[in-house]
Amino acid sequence: MERTSADIDALFSTLLAVPPDPRARLYEAMRHAAIGGGKRMRPLLAVAAASLFHVDRSHALRAGLAVECIHVYSLIHDDLPCMDDDDLRRGKPTVHKAYDECTAILAGDSLHALAFEVLADPATHEDPFVRAELVAELARAAGPSGMAGGQMIDLAAASGTFDLAAVTRLQQLKTGALIGFCLEAGAILGRVPAAGRTGLRGYARDVGLAFQIADDLLDVEGEEAKTGKRVGKDGEAGKETFVSLLGAERARQQARLLVDQALEHLQTFGSEADLLRAIARFAVERDH
Amino acid sequence: MERTSADIDALFSTLLAVPPDPRARLYEAMRHAAIGGGKRMRPLLAVAAASLFHVDRSHALRAGLAVECIHVYSLIHDDLPCMDDDDLRRGKPTVHKAYDECTAILAGDSLHALAFEVLADPATHEDPFVRAELVAELARAAGPSGMAGGQMIDLAAASGTFDLAAVTRLQQLKTGALIGFCLEAGAILGRVPAAGRTGLRGYARDVGLAFQIADDLLDVEGEEAKTGKRVGKDGEAGKETFVSLLGAERARQQARLLVDQALEHLQTFGSEADLLRAIARFAVERDH
Repeated sequence: MERTSADIDALFSTLLAVPPDPRARLYEAMRHAAIGGGKRMRPLLAVAAASLFHVDRSHALRAGLAVECIHVYSLIHDDLPCMDDDDLRRGKPTVHKAYDECTAILAGDSLHALAFEVLADPATHEDPFVRAELVAELARAAGPSGMAGGQMIDLAAASGTFDLAAVTRLQQLKTGALIGFCLEAGAILGRVPAAGRTGLRGYARDVGLAFQIADDLLDVEGEEAKTGKRVGKDGEAGKETFVSLLGAERARQQARLLVDQALEHLQTFGSEADLLRAIARFAVERDH
Repeated sequence: MERTSADIDALFSTLLAVPPDPRARLYEAMRHAAIGGGKRMRPLLAVAAASLFHVDRSHALRAGLAVECIHVYSLIHDDLPCMDDDDLRRGKPTVHKAYDECTAILAGDSLHALAFEVLADPATHEDPFVRAELVAELARAAGPSGMAGGQMIDLAAASGTFDLAAVTRLQQLKTGALIGFCLEAGAILGRVPAAGRTGLRGYARDVGLAFQIADDLLDVEGEEAKTGKRVGKDGEAGKETFVSLLGAERARQQARLLVDQALEHLQTFGSEADLLRAIARFAVERDH
């Protein structure tokens, strides 16, 4: 995890070299949000999935960086005053606090575009078919049928009545789609045909939900000093979550069950899937 | 122009079918912004450039739709209260006025992702190399080295002292990069090697600037009823433009000169470039 984090930081640092012109502030804001923070769960999942198929690590890292670009842009936009209005993210002031709202919107938009620039670059894979498939999958996972659609449902969640099925659906789009992309990217880079991806897709679905339940638990039970973001937000906003609907204890059990299920999906793999197994366990056992 | 507008509207209408779930509001906001408005200059340029190389019209339209997605998302975000704070766009209320700020941010983000989903789809071109090149070019044109970077410089323009060279550079990024993509897309779809694109790139550079000067003139001399957006914005914001720096008369002359130059870049083409010639003239003679 530390190695992947360092590699992703180094890649961001190279790609986001600050130009000597009035765009400097934009690049600085992108660096503020993208470098030196977060668990890098998504790049790690992409690297771990790709390693199952003996993919060049530098290729997997670029796919991981692309999905992290999307994740970071979504955090910047979600933190804006008109959205969640958050001041703290990854232990630092949010971008609109450290800079301003305009810069935050543009920094998010710029990271969004950068994700696709990175994927479409031959450095990500020599085969254009692989590059085009990566772009298609990430665009779907990020857009209205994925993350952005989930975010829209989330906005409605504060006012509507959401049951467990509705919260599950919301999270499958809002966080599950990008996590699904990470595993899919490993398979695409490894040229695994769609029929051979069933296990990885099951793993992604289960780990994605387990990860989200753990996030909901941290929002209730976590400490700001460790999570690096404000806690207690969901209750304040009156949003139904896995914890509000199931209670903390049953939510915790459900997360563990999902991790067990995720591990079962990896049965056809040997020790080469140990990193994916460790990530699944970490997803629910973490305190940040 | 009317045929291309109708084709783009029809494509948007199919791609943005409203789903029967809480994402409906998001899709409706995207439709509000994307359907039935604007001159569709960018799709028209892509279609006109592609027709030079006998590209299938349906392929050129999809590339044109992708660049229009980026253009529309940028308008939605630029109109937000923390940016230009505009109420009127393409003769309709802006998205944050008709819906709300959160929905406007997400509708912009969703159109951004959709652009790349459309380009990476095999329906845009059967050759993945072409699709990957289109994605790479559009991502560069939209991101911090293109449109978003230009937008950042524009934010600085209200406070700094900008001379003609600085305003030219700003506009080459803010509006020129996307216009450049339209011509480039025609060449990419037509499998024209980079060496054969010099004329089209010169045309794009000159038409892009001429188009922007005409926009600056409309901001000073135009009517809201025709332009469909608020006028007099630049002066209010204290921004230097081609008109504030050159005066209206010299700016008009400069625009005409750029159009003449643009036409010279098309000399190697025969009547198949007549649509590009007509667009260049329209860029400066329009009243909206």
